[in-house]
Amino acid sequence: MSNKIAIGILGATGVVGQRFIQMLERHPWFEVAWLAASDRSEGKTYGEAARWRLKTAIPANVAAMKVSPATPEGAPKIIFAALDASIAAEMEPRFAEAGCAVITNSSALRMQSDVPLVIPEVNADHIKLIDTQAWRKKSGGYVVTNPNCSAIGLVLALAPLHRRFGLEAVMAVTMQAVSGAGYPGVASLDILGNVIPYIRNEEEKMEEETQKLLGKLNGAGIIPAPFAMSAQCNRVAVEDGHTESISIRLKTKATREEIIAAWNDYRAEPQELKLPSAPERPVVYLEAVDRPQPRFDVDLGAGMTTAVGRLRPCSVLDWKFTVLSHNTIRGAAGAAVLNAELLKAKGYLATS
Amino acid sequence: MSNKIAIGILGATGVVGQRFIQMLERHPWFEVAWLAASDRSEGKTYGEAARWRLKTAIPANVAAMKVSPATPEGAPKIIFAALDASIAAEMEPRFAEAGCAVITNSSALRMQSDVPLVIPEVNADHIKLIDTQAWRKKSGGYVVTNPNCSAIGLVLALAPLHRRFGLEAVMAVTMQAVSGAGYPGVASLDILGNVIPYIRNEEEKMEEETQKLLGKLNGAGIIPAPFAMSAQCNRVAVEDGHTESISIRLKTKATREEIIAAWNDYRAEPQELKLPSAPERPVVYLEAVDRPQPRFDVDLGAGMTTAVGRLRPCSVLDWKFTVLSHNTIRGAAGAAVLNAELLKAKGYLATS
Amino acid sequence: MSNKIAIGILGATGVVGQRFIQMLERHPWFEVAWLAASDRSEGKTYGEAARWRLKTAIPANVAAMKVSPATPEGAPKIIFAALDASIAAEMEPRFAEAGCAVITNSSALRMQSDVPLVIPEVNADHIKLIDTQAWRKKSGGYVVTNPNCSAIGLVLALAPLHRRFGLEAVMAVTMQAVSGAGYPGVASLDILGNVIPYIRNEEEKMEEETQKLLGKLNGAGIIPAPFAMSAQCNRVAVEDGHTESISIRLKTKATREEIIAAWNDYRAEPQELKLPSAPERPVVYLEAVDRPQPRFDVDLGAGMTTAVGRLRPCSVLDWKFTVLSHNTIRGAAGAAVLNAELLKAKGYLATS
Amino acid sequence: MSNKIAIGILGATGVVGQRFIQMLERHPWFEVAWLAASDRSEGKTYGEAARWRLKTAIPANVAAMKVSPATPEGAPKIIFAALDASIAAEMEPRFAEAGCAVITNSSALRMQSDVPLVIPEVNADHIKLIDTQAWRKKSGGYVVTNPNCSAIGLVLALAPLHRRFGLEAVMAVTMQAVSGAGYPGVASLDILGNVIPYIRNEEEKMEEETQKLLGKLNGAGIIPAPFAMSAQCNRVAVEDGHTESISIRLKTKATREEIIAAWNDYRAEPQELKLPSAPERPVVYLEAVDRPQPRFDVDLGAGMTTAVGRLRPCSVLDWKFTVLSHNTIRGAAGAAVLNAELLKAKGYLATS
Repeated sequence: MSNKIAIGILGATGVVGQRFIQMLERHPWFEVAWLAASDRSEGKTYGEAARWRLKTAIPANVAAMKVSPATPEGAPKIIFAALDASIAAEMEPRFAEAGCAVITNSSALRMQSDVPLVIPEVNADHIKLIDTQAWRKKSGGYVVTNPNCSAIGLVLALAPLHRRFGLEAVMAVTMQAVSGAGYPGVASLDILGNVIPYIRNEEEKMEEETQKLLGKLNGAGIIPAPFAMSAQCNRVAVEDGHTESISIRLKTKATREEIIAAWNDYRAEPQELKLPSAPERPVVYLEAVDRPQPRFDVDLGAGMTTAVGRLRPCSVLDWKFTVLSHNTIRGAAGAAVLNAELLKAKGYLATS
Repeated sequence: MSNKIAIGILGATGVVGQRFIQMLERHPWFEVAWLAASDRSEGKTYGEAARWRLKTAIPANVAAMKVSPATPEGAPKIIFAALDASIAAEMEPRFAEAGCAVITNSSALRMQSDVPLVIPEVNADHIKLIDTQAWRKKSGGYVVTNPNCSAIGLVLALAPLHRRFGLEAVMAVTMQAVSGAGYPGVASLDILGNVIPYIRNEEEKMEEETQKLLGKLNGAGIIPAPFAMSAQCNRVAVEDGHTESISIRLKTKATREEIIAAWNDYRAEPQELKLPSAPERPVVYLEAVDRPQPRFDVDLGAGMTTAVGRLRPCSVLDWKFTVLSHNTIRGAAGAAVLNAELLKAKGYLATS
Repeated sequence: MSNKIAIGILGATGVVGQRFIQMLERHPWFEVAWLAASDRSEGKTYGEAARWRLKTAIPANVAAMKVSPATPEGAPKIIFAALDASIAAEMEPRFAEAGCAVITNSSALRMQSDVPLVIPEVNADHIKLIDTQAWRKKSGGYVVTNPNCSAIGLVLALAPLHRRFGLEAVMAVTMQAVSGAGYPGVASLDILGNVIPYIRNEEEKMEEETQKLLGKLNGAGIIPAPFAMSAQCNRVAVEDGHTESISIRLKTKATREEIIAAWNDYRAEPQELKLPSAPERPVVYLEAVDRPQPRFDVDLGAGMTTAVGRLRPCSVLDWKFTVLSHNTIRGAAGAAVLNAELLKAKGYLATS
Repeated sequence: MSNKIAIGILGATGVVGQRFIQMLERHPWFEVAWLAASDRSEGKTYGEAARWRLKTAIPANVAAMKVSPATPEGAPKIIFAALDASIAAEMEPRFAEAGCAVITNSSALRMQSDVPLVIPEVNADHIKLIDTQAWRKKSGGYVVTNPNCSAIGLVLALAPLHRRFGLEAVMAVTMQAVSGAGYPGVASLDILGNVIPYIRNEEEKMEEETQKLLGKLNGAGIIPAPFAMSAQCNRVAVEDGHTESISIRLKTKATREEIIAAWNDYRAEPQELKLPSAPERPVVYLEAVDRPQPRFDVDLGAGMTTAVGRLRPCSVLDWKFTVLSHNTIRGAAGAAVLNAELLKAKGYLATS
């Protein structure tokens, strides 16, 4: 047995569960030790239970692992979760109650006032909310969430501007990849040669999560960032990578050079702490007039870097630009893994 | 020979030229009598010269027609044009000079102050600008233009609101079909599984054409509509149909019902005049939460109706909604044909 | 109430069920009078129960119709069925038992020895098998099937050659549209930018159905055509239209001209009887070197004509060519409707 | 300057030229020292001249390199070529004449009797033809070719069977990726939602190259393998990876296990010589019923391994199966690089 920290995965067979396994295959700190999925997977090996949809092969040791029942008994104390919201709402508290650190990609508890919603480069300080959780006080367990796949790329692009210049208004129109809907997810008959101008609950999540992420920790809660925020979410025939057309109004006026510098210079705690999954650069501005594009730029920084391009003046607000972010890496599994790394660096992953 | 009005087509082999031929195949007033294309097509029959890209067959009489040199000599007096802007800039004035009515889809002269840019349901009165053209005075010839394929759907959706409530600001993000780039146009390697967040000159055209179309005729010129207008244009893997995510601010506040009624009740001169290509309804609001979609709604009103859906409040401006319009029918060939029908109804197509 | 024959549809909400409704909207003989679907649709109107996936609108009268329980009580005596094979195996006999003419697209009973598998242009005489069915003798009810969507286009292309020259061997490789898998059917994550070289049971169906269709009626059974037949089935990112690369060996050698004439001259009983859904030409040979293509040719003959092209010598067998057929019209709903028309013309649809 | 061998690239800006640069970025033996492209690129840096279409970044040193005129003067003695056939026919002899080793992906000279057409795992001995070339005798220069992208995967799958069991007949139907047509290549309007059943000259190349590759070296020429070979080539909406449905007849009958073992056990000279670009396994049989698929398997062995699957009996010939091969790596740039490595290992790359 290695010295690595044993990790359990809830929802291990889904698109995001698979990304967890892929990202943890050679992780220096963590290793997958326990997998749970829906009842019909129980008792099977992971290789039998999962319809593996990634280009890299299933790690042999994981393929051979038995899928466990989704209960805290016998599970490791550190749990990565990628569950449907309705199941998560019930199951995540149960694991936290039982003393587990639940690091989740699910949306169920993101907006709960004592649950931190965290992007380590943006609001690492929000993890202190953990200490206010009843689970924490009782059993040591807690829940930490990462944002929706459409919010995370946007917020990584907004954070450097919000810090330097202040945001007054944000309009976002997304063109989201089908992998964001899981598997089987979007039917091919719905998306081939098509755009679907609707994703259930997505606009609401983007709006409120953006404001919580850029909000201020104030005692036992977060005061949402006060700028106006409006999202329109579309699905397009792209496999991985959410592209977003953004317009913003700033409090302090800034030049094109200042804005690009804000992005390119941006470094935060994960970079200083050299967390294993932290990209060297959280945000990169691409100068080419027609970038970023999902086909070419989605894997920047191993899928953890947000690409920005096409900065130009907006005649309604101040500036407009395009954002691209990998929705199942930075927008899901990678987000949770980086949260776990931050928690470990901050002493929140006691593994005695 | 029939009693129909003989029409010539400049740029007959391109995607829009083909749509002209398709739309005119059974037109009650017009018939194709003359075709011109690039030099390398000259002398061939149209069937040999064109790489026909439509689902309906080439009309047999057109397939057998010889492609003529692109000069006014021997051409009919009524010309539909679908030329690249650089060629149009030189060729359209030459035909107008020679006494032709040039009804063009090209962008070259759209913003010239004495050239009307017309959507018959929106600004039919702008055709009076024709009388101020030097060509008109000299030879009877003139140029009338229709807008860019991304502007026309938007403006049809905006016009009813602008009339009833007044627009103060408009933000548009487009997801445009590949047919908008002509043939061969967008390379498959560029667009399969991808979004391209850039279309050359498109945002500029959308912004300035929208303001000219909704502007006021004032003597020999148009005063652009004074609202703020910002566009972001993306290309997606869709064949036909531009989808647009729109936000607006209104001068006079309006309810959801009032706005939807403004769209659904909208009728204009083409409907009253019963022009052959005028859709019964220029704008239709779809109640389904996930519509309009190009795959299902692009052919509404034989491709001449603009579909609108998803009206909901916008927390930055007032309202947001989705617009869909057929880019090579309503957005190109159909736009010019309807302009020609309007001109005939108004006595501008003397054919003696 | 009209004078048309009342029709019921089993499996009305699926992709093929929807095509039934679309094809019957203006049918001169039949009209939809009763709809059944899965239990969860019962009691809803069809408009509420169906996720309509076609470009034409749901007929208003059908949208308002209540979905009935899938039992023969209260159902019309003529039933079109589009059920999953496992459900069909149980339900179709029940309706036949109750005296219904069950005209089905399902595969469940296709290979049963007393059930005719019919393409009206190919083996109309096989309908006599009906008279041998126990259901028929007992209650007047019976079952007639049409072939798999991948077999029907192939057999329409083979039949003229088999009649004139005799087939000795057939190799077929298909590239099948996603609509063939129903809705939701193929997940977008499985097919975007991909080819799937496997469709469950499809190769077996193609092989045995082709031989039954081209077989000979012999008393109470069909003697399968004795040629060797091998199929390989692939799924591609096409919405509608199965494309097939075919090689054949003939008994009597034939020239290119003779083969093309066999296709182009082919007419059969549905054409002679002028059945409403019969295409003027069952098979059309396209001379262009790169046709047929699903994008351009799938709707030939309102989706009921099989397109053939690229005939050229094969150095392993004798000839090779490409076949294209609309999989949900000619390959499913249209096949059943044409079967029903044939049955009516032959006196098998007593409606007293 | 490094100790690596200086390489020049003809046709450096195309899709295959870009793959050369990508594959040579960290090559242990070779380094790019000279780039030529069409006249309009001359004098520009490569970064300016090339429209880079790969997911990895342009190597910085190559981006900064000047594009040279396409003449042997000043060029290195080892040239990788990726030219259109018509240009290659004229240019490759000129470089060979001037003493260059021309290792080319172009089709121009593949079937010339004294030019070896080589897959190192299949017919490494054919390189001896070099010694019969007039260029070689005169200046030391020569031309070596690799096969068409559709032939190479097939031949890698056939070679192990041909050696062990003997081939009597081969039928191949391809579903080829758009990158095989170069850039811009296939227009998106031609391929979105479509299959094109025609690729110019492709079937002829596949048939004759397969027989030359599996043929026998006999003095100054190759005796083509005598089996019957028939190809049908289709284009599908896939970016990279040609999928092929294959049927074969064998001389010596073999079991399923024997055939799969023939593939999985196959090793050849490149593996023994441990050539840097040789995959550990040239051919891998995938047991999953629905594999290989381009989306998941195209990058096996860094794009140099041919994946085979779905072996099952064929009722016309003996066996049928599916082959997948990366068309721009194993099927183009990687093929030439591996040829160069073989030539070096065999002493044909004198670099004094």
